[in-house]
Amino acid sequence: MVVGWEIASLICGLLSIVVAVFLGRWVLKQENKSAPIAEYSHAVQEGAAAYLRRLFQWLGVLVAIIAIILVLALGWQTAIAYIVGAGCSTAGAYIGMYIATRANGRVAWAARNGLVKAFPVGFFAGGVMGTALVGLSLIGVTAFYMIFKSTDIVLGFSFGASSLALLAKAGGGIYTKTADIGADLVGKVEFDLAEDDPRNPAVVADNVGDNVGDVAGMGADILDSYVASVVAVMILGALLFSGNVAYVIYPLLLGGVGILASILGMIFVIRLREGKDPGRALNTGTISTTIIFAILSLAITFASGVDKPWGVWLPNIAGLLAGIVIGFTSDAFTDIDQAAVQQTANAALTGPAIVILNGFSYGLLSIVPSILGICVAMIASWVLAVQFGVPGTYGISVAAVGMLSITPMILSSDAYGPIVDNAKGCAEYGHESEEVIAVCDRLDAAGNTAKAITKGFAIGAAALTVLALFAAYAESVGISSLDLRNPGVTVGVFIGAMMPPLLSALLILSVGRNAFKMVEEIRRQFREIPGLIEGKVRPDSARCVDIATQGALKELILPAILALVVPILVGLILGKNALGGFLAGSIVTGIIFALMMANAGGLWDNAKKFIEDGALGGKGSEAHKAAVVGDTVGDPFKDTAGPSLNTFITVMSLSATVFGPIIAHIALLNL
Amino acid sequence: MVVGWEIASLICGLLSIVVAVFLGRWVLKQENKSAPIAEYSHAVQEGAAAYLRRLFQWLGVLVAIIAIILVLALGWQTAIAYIVGAGCSTAGAYIGMYIATRANGRVAWAARNGLVKAFPVGFFAGGVMGTALVGLSLIGVTAFYMIFKSTDIVLGFSFGASSLALLAKAGGGIYTKTADIGADLVGKVEFDLAEDDPRNPAVVADNVGDNVGDVAGMGADILDSYVASVVAVMILGALLFSGNVAYVIYPLLLGGVGILASILGMIFVIRLREGKDPGRALNTGTISTTIIFAILSLAITFASGVDKPWGVWLPNIAGLLAGIVIGFTSDAFTDIDQAAVQQTANAALTGPAIVILNGFSYGLLSIVPSILGICVAMIASWVLAVQFGVPGTYGISVAAVGMLSITPMILSSDAYGPIVDNAKGCAEYGHESEEVIAVCDRLDAAGNTAKAITKGFAIGAAALTVLALFAAYAESVGISSLDLRNPGVTVGVFIGAMMPPLLSALLILSVGRNAFKMVEEIRRQFREIPGLIEGKVRPDSARCVDIATQGALKELILPAILALVVPILVGLILGKNALGGFLAGSIVTGIIFALMMANAGGLWDNAKKFIEDGALGGKGSEAHKAAVVGDTVGDPFKDTAGPSLNTFITVMSLSATVFGPIIAHIALLNL
Repeated sequence: MVVGWEIASLICGLLSIVVAVFLGRWVLKQENKSAPIAEYSHAVQEGAAAYLRRLFQWLGVLVAIIAIILVLALGWQTAIAYIVGAGCSTAGAYIGMYIATRANGRVAWAARNGLVKAFPVGFFAGGVMGTALVGLSLIGVTAFYMIFKSTDIVLGFSFGASSLALLAKAGGGIYTKTADIGADLVGKVEFDLAEDDPRNPAVVADNVGDNVGDVAGMGADILDSYVASVVAVMILGALLFSGNVAYVIYPLLLGGVGILASILGMIFVIRLREGKDPGRALNTGTISTTIIFAILSLAITFASGVDKPWGVWLPNIAGLLAGIVIGFTSDAFTDIDQAAVQQTANAALTGPAIVILNGFSYGLLSIVPSILGICVAMIASWVLAVQFGVPGTYGISVAAVGMLSITPMILSSDAYGPIVDNAKGCAEYGHESEEVIAVCDRLDAAGNTAKAITKGFAIGAAALTVLALFAAYAESVGISSLDLRNPGVTVGVFIGAMMPPLLSALLILSVGRNAFKMVEEIRRQFREIPGLIEGKVRPDSARCVDIATQGALKELILPAILALVVPILVGLILGKNALGGFLAGSIVTGIIFALMMANAGGLWDNAKKFIEDGALGGKGSEAHKAAVVGDTVGDPFKDTAGPSLNTFITVMSLSATVFGPIIAHIALLNL
Repeated sequence: MVVGWEIASLICGLLSIVVAVFLGRWVLKQENKSAPIAEYSHAVQEGAAAYLRRLFQWLGVLVAIIAIILVLALGWQTAIAYIVGAGCSTAGAYIGMYIATRANGRVAWAARNGLVKAFPVGFFAGGVMGTALVGLSLIGVTAFYMIFKSTDIVLGFSFGASSLALLAKAGGGIYTKTADIGADLVGKVEFDLAEDDPRNPAVVADNVGDNVGDVAGMGADILDSYVASVVAVMILGALLFSGNVAYVIYPLLLGGVGILASILGMIFVIRLREGKDPGRALNTGTISTTIIFAILSLAITFASGVDKPWGVWLPNIAGLLAGIVIGFTSDAFTDIDQAAVQQTANAALTGPAIVILNGFSYGLLSIVPSILGICVAMIASWVLAVQFGVPGTYGISVAAVGMLSITPMILSSDAYGPIVDNAKGCAEYGHESEEVIAVCDRLDAAGNTAKAITKGFAIGAAALTVLALFAAYAESVGISSLDLRNPGVTVGVFIGAMMPPLLSALLILSVGRNAFKMVEEIRRQFREIPGLIEGKVRPDSARCVDIATQGALKELILPAILALVVPILVGLILGKNALGGFLAGSIVTGIIFALMMANAGGLWDNAKKFIEDGALGGKGSEAHKAAVVGDTVGDPFKDTAGPSLNTFITVMSLSATVFGPIIAHIALLNL
């Protein structure tokens, strides 16, 4: 009876694709009759497509190299899985960018007819991403498992998806902040232009950046955690329950049920009535999805053939609840109504230095609730699993899948954010009326509320996922002990812990370097193009798009090497135990830095907004200038380095797990 | 023959005290005939003494509470050792402050007679600290061991020394930066006063801060690593070589030999001739001491009765060399002539945001050489020990002692820095001639060179020390496995890793809060005291001293609880394995944050100096203002949070080791 259940997962995946197509067609059928918005939208579409084309050309070479290595080291099946995984990630990023750059103008146009008309356009566009990406991934994982019946080959799929996701995320992050900082430093500060002023040469690049960074990058990011957590549980299931294949298929079924729950949850979201808050609608959707998932997953657990159903269902729910709790508490430090933001804004009265110090400190403090949440989830899922006779490592890993199972819903709300943010930009660019812009503002505010929650969720999920991968690595290379008193393990921990700070530094420096070039180009255009500042001629936006594109691609080489090569080097030189320590070290600092950077960045952003809303002298005051410095520092924290770290540690864990069995045999030392 | 060798260590300790008294009397015999300098010096002496008195009163209560707990939990002997250890730390801080506040005016006066006359006054004043503190500690440790023959009781001594050191360091760090930032933000920025302008109400507090922060705090800091590393080796010696007491006494002998080598090394330093560079003299002293120590320690190793002399001497030398290498390479990122500093200064042309981002990133990159150095030292000392039949953990711990054995010399050069820095302040305050100030400048530059080296040394040594303590903890509570796949260990690692960022955040926020109060007080004085800005009346300096003092003391409560209570709580709730993971986690992020903060702070400081030296528009330019923001952000990084972290992780390790055996029996969970 057990064999065959994976078909259910495949069907859910296909259903998800059907829903995506349906939603996508509906969004594209909405109209946008504003000529300037259409023109602008078109420029952003072109810029984004050009960037992604060049990114994927460049990445094609990388994928080919790794595929050849995989053929030689592990056989053609893994190589094919790797290529298809990379292709799924690519398709996901492309779909997200495609729909987002087409939806934003339509949302802006629909805003003429009020909130209730505009909201579904934005939410369904987000929904396309949520359903399409998860559907593709689940189909991919399930299909490879059904064909080869080998979790090692499925691992190749995950490795492909994650390595592309890292580069899409990091590249997009560099791109978006290069353009954003460049546009702000010259446009806003030197020429006193408004955000999205058409005279600013970098404004198209800035909006392209929002799409390739926030939409495409973030989609690839959450997706890679999703796939990795499913695959980690499959590997552990195969290794720990050699007699019962139900434990291998179980995460696929949770994924399938998650799709059903999310689709049902979306129905709760779109039942938005006039006068209601769209932010609450999104949260209602998340909570409904959670409840529906809890019920459906209980049913599927008992039906699936696992012989200790409570020992897997309860850890799954522990993970899910932890995700929700981390999500809902993680914005305490970044919420504009909270003390941390307001104190930081107050500090702006003494100049930028204390703003920076406060934001950095609160960013550090903000790691506490999330880390405690992750720790509670770990212990709870371990204890619950062991209580019912299931190995604890399997329990922790199932918690990761539980947390991520409602990804279609989470991803839909998350993608909604940048889409409506861009819609606001379109409305401003198209000189729409005050009312239309006000509607877009309300949509945007809802996006920010949703983003705070999904961000905490994503980091919590990534933490549990890499812990699951860590367990999968240790089991699959047959480590006997990862004792911290072994100097190899300790050295591994130190070197691993060094990696996330190192990646962060490289990415931030990249942004600084590129922004510098962008600033020079914008200054040159204002200097050399007559009539530009008067608004008589259009700027050479393509040149700015080009600088952002080239810069982002060039700066990706070092991060790619760090993620793919260093774990293998550590393993080859110091052995498999050291590599285990390396992964553990990278997970710990990876999560700390990801949380700190995301939250400090969000806090600085909101402290600036708090002043712009009229407090402490409002826009243009000295306090505002000080707060702008904080916001600029926070930009690469929250949009470049912070979000790349999740994927970075996932890729390193996958790289170690894929090559671990070979490394273990040929290591130089074996400490 | 073995018993009795500890007498040699006691004799060396006494010799060190004799040298300290001799040097101290010589320094105090030097004259200072400038009335304004004497007056100023007196105000600083009073402020510093008042602060230390109140600090120690406050700490007296804490020590009493802990002593009572220790009597109840571990018996009166440990409690007495704890009290005496705390007393040694107190005495060390007091001696350092006493001599430093009296030497600075004398150095400034001697500078009238040129570099060759002024240098020994500064260096011998530093030497008083180096020899007195190490002498006291070594006598304390040796005496307690000779009386009780129990390493557990000696551990109490170390616990006392470290817990006081943490509070002296953190309190001094908050004090000094409160005063410094306050003085700068109002005095320099708003009223355009020079550094050390007598009209600035916070200038006395600022200079008191330099003495209580840099001299007293730093002395206590290095001392606590020194004692802790010696004690960790003694504990491991007792547990691992139950038959041979020579391994327990061995670190005491290395300490004794280190004193002899340092005293001989000092002779090389003071042979400074006219026209030579005092910075090179200091470095020559460090290198001579190292060579002498290597030779003497070889002799004592063979004489001491350890049965595997090469297995302990070689790890000792590995540690010593690693310390030197880390020291000499650690300033690559902060040296004013290097690319990192100059690029950061260049970024100031775009405003403060990129300055902050660059400094932060280079701070993160700067951890790489030091961490690799620590890793190499660990592996080398482990392998060398095991090669000759000595347990690897003992090898790593001996490496820590080897690194720290030349502490008298390191501490002397390190204390020299703030003393001559203050001498420059005295000379400016006393309106000395240009030539005198130039001599002070040259002395100060030498201090900065020495500081870069000793700072790297201190962090490397602290890293190996806490690793040694970690091993001592694991052995003494009888941990069977610290496997990272155990969820208790992993949760411990996560919570431990969270602690250093948490402490950093609390300390930085404290500085921000107090600086805010200080700013208001300075503004009030300029507003309400007629004639102050014209220089007709003196400011109410005592009030500023008071604000800094009270603020520092109040803000210490939370850090003290974090360091002493959290490890015990983790142990009580999650068990001894989790507590082991906790220590490991705290070591890893502690070192990363300590290095990042120290180096980023130094880099920002030097980027500012680079511009002040005339580059990029020089003083007063927009670039300079941007660089000043970086420097202000760096102040609490490099002088408050960064330097407190070493001691923080040492105290947590000691707290765990002292209470571990009790915790292990009554823990709630035992994951």
